[in-house]
Amino acid sequence: MSERIGLLAGNGRLPFLFSQAAKAQGLEVHVVALDGEADASLLAHVASMQWVKVGQADGIVKAFKNKGVSKAVMAGGVGRIRSLTQARPDVGMLKIAAGMRTFRDDELLRGIARYFETKGVQIVAPTDYVKSVLAQKGHLAGPALTGPQQRDVEIGREVAAALGAVDVGQTVVVKDGVVLAVEAIEGTDACIRRAGQFGGPGGVVVKRCKPTQDVRFDLPAAGPVTLEVMREAGAKVLAVEAGKTVLLDAELLFSDALKLGFSVVGY
Amino acid sequence: MSERIGLLAGNGRLPFLFSQAAKAQGLEVHVVALDGEADASLLAHVASMQWVKVGQADGIVKAFKNKGVSKAVMAGGVGRIRSLTQARPDVGMLKIAAGMRTFRDDELLRGIARYFETKGVQIVAPTDYVKSVLAQKGHLAGPALTGPQQRDVEIGREVAAALGAVDVGQTVVVKDGVVLAVEAIEGTDACIRRAGQFGGPGGVVVKRCKPTQDVRFDLPAAGPVTLEVMREAGAKVLAVEAGKTVLLDAELLFSDALKLGFSVVGY
Repeated sequence: MSERIGLLAGNGRLPFLFSQAAKAQGLEVHVVALDGEADASLLAHVASMQWVKVGQADGIVKAFKNKGVSKAVMAGGVGRIRSLTQARPDVGMLKIAAGMRTFRDDELLRGIARYFETKGVQIVAPTDYVKSVLAQKGHLAGPALTGPQQRDVEIGREVAAALGAVDVGQTVVVKDGVVLAVEAIEGTDACIRRAGQFGGPGGVVVKRCKPTQDVRFDLPAAGPVTLEVMREAGAKVLAVEAGKTVLLDAELLFSDALKLGFSVVGY
Repeated sequence: MSERIGLLAGNGRLPFLFSQAAKAQGLEVHVVALDGEADASLLAHVASMQWVKVGQADGIVKAFKNKGVSKAVMAGGVGRIRSLTQARPDVGMLKIAAGMRTFRDDELLRGIARYFETKGVQIVAPTDYVKSVLAQKGHLAGPALTGPQQRDVEIGREVAAALGAVDVGQTVVVKDGVVLAVEAIEGTDACIRRAGQFGGPGGVVVKRCKPTQDVRFDLPAAGPVTLEVMREAGAKVLAVEAGKTVLLDAELLFSDALKLGFSVVGY
């Protein structure tokens, strides 16, 4: 019997990328899919798939144990907005929540991982299996940055570091030295769109991992969809933290950037 | 001849409050009004009023000197969005801009004040004249805060301090330990509205002065209009930094808060 790995799957491309990579490494992937988040077509790529509602911590543990899984990754997004308003917490989730001072993302995810571990399911980093998707350092695609764009990247990094230190968000949009938008609960895409709406075209989008980030979950991610949102909002540069940002479908991302005349850099 | 004081007037109530207070102190107020920002009805309360376009630094200096003004305050908001897209910088403004690394609010305002001073117009704090409008410490209006609301105020203060340290914005909205929205260029009202849209009712609005804030300009301000936006967005608590936040029409603000069942606190 091949080694089993669990996947707690949220939305987006990362659950697919992880599943493919784990399978290629000879692992049997058992998915617990978050209702309203995960993509049903993931089933075609994995050994099994069970659905649970967001907030059902004990349900997730039980589903993994049913499949003999004792090691799992968390991959894909969980709409923070939906999880606030629609989650139906079970006893396990309430126990996790009771131990928290705040429900900021990172603290909440650490709490969930700790709880899973007490129940016999160890949480490991998806990037242990799919290292190739982490952004490299340097110029990655599209035109070289102008001097003002480089300066905007520096400002964005500085602001994102401050924001991350208080566990708020990972995205900042800067233009001509002005910070146009800072991400909190609305997510990256809404943050990029707002920057375009208030600051006009030409924005520099900077994504940065929190300094205290637990790399087992919620790494910054960007892909072709990010680029499409940037196109709509008029942003021109995507700058991501090297080694700590997941590039989804990187080849497509780079070729799209080239076509659109957008720059992608890892710093 | 009574002592003259200049007022570079942006939008909102503060130019009115300043003018009234200065007049009551026997000063002759000469206004340079920013086109598209200042309220024309201010003229009824002051000795003179001249209009200039945003970005006309030399125009402002000239207008003050025409009236024999060598000491002035800057009061009222300048729509940062408009100033980005519609400003018509003159030579003076370009000189100011050329000396900046970034155009973040505080740095830009300091640069403008320095330039005015080299031209013989000293910039002083409006609150030197209208101290009574600064928020007091403690419970100011409405119901006492619940424990969770107090915790949200603490989180908001911490996040706003981090945000202010990198000179981004002054407003943070928190609910049940989750940071819903963080202000950048969109301004306080849009930030409060977004928090309601994404996080639902019950938000705690925290305003905090930047740690490096030059109190001569751009102090956080809140008033009845802020409360009206909070009502629309479902926010329930307004927490402002005592001694560093201007409360516009404080009595009306407090009575409105009482009527609406909202809390106002200074911390």
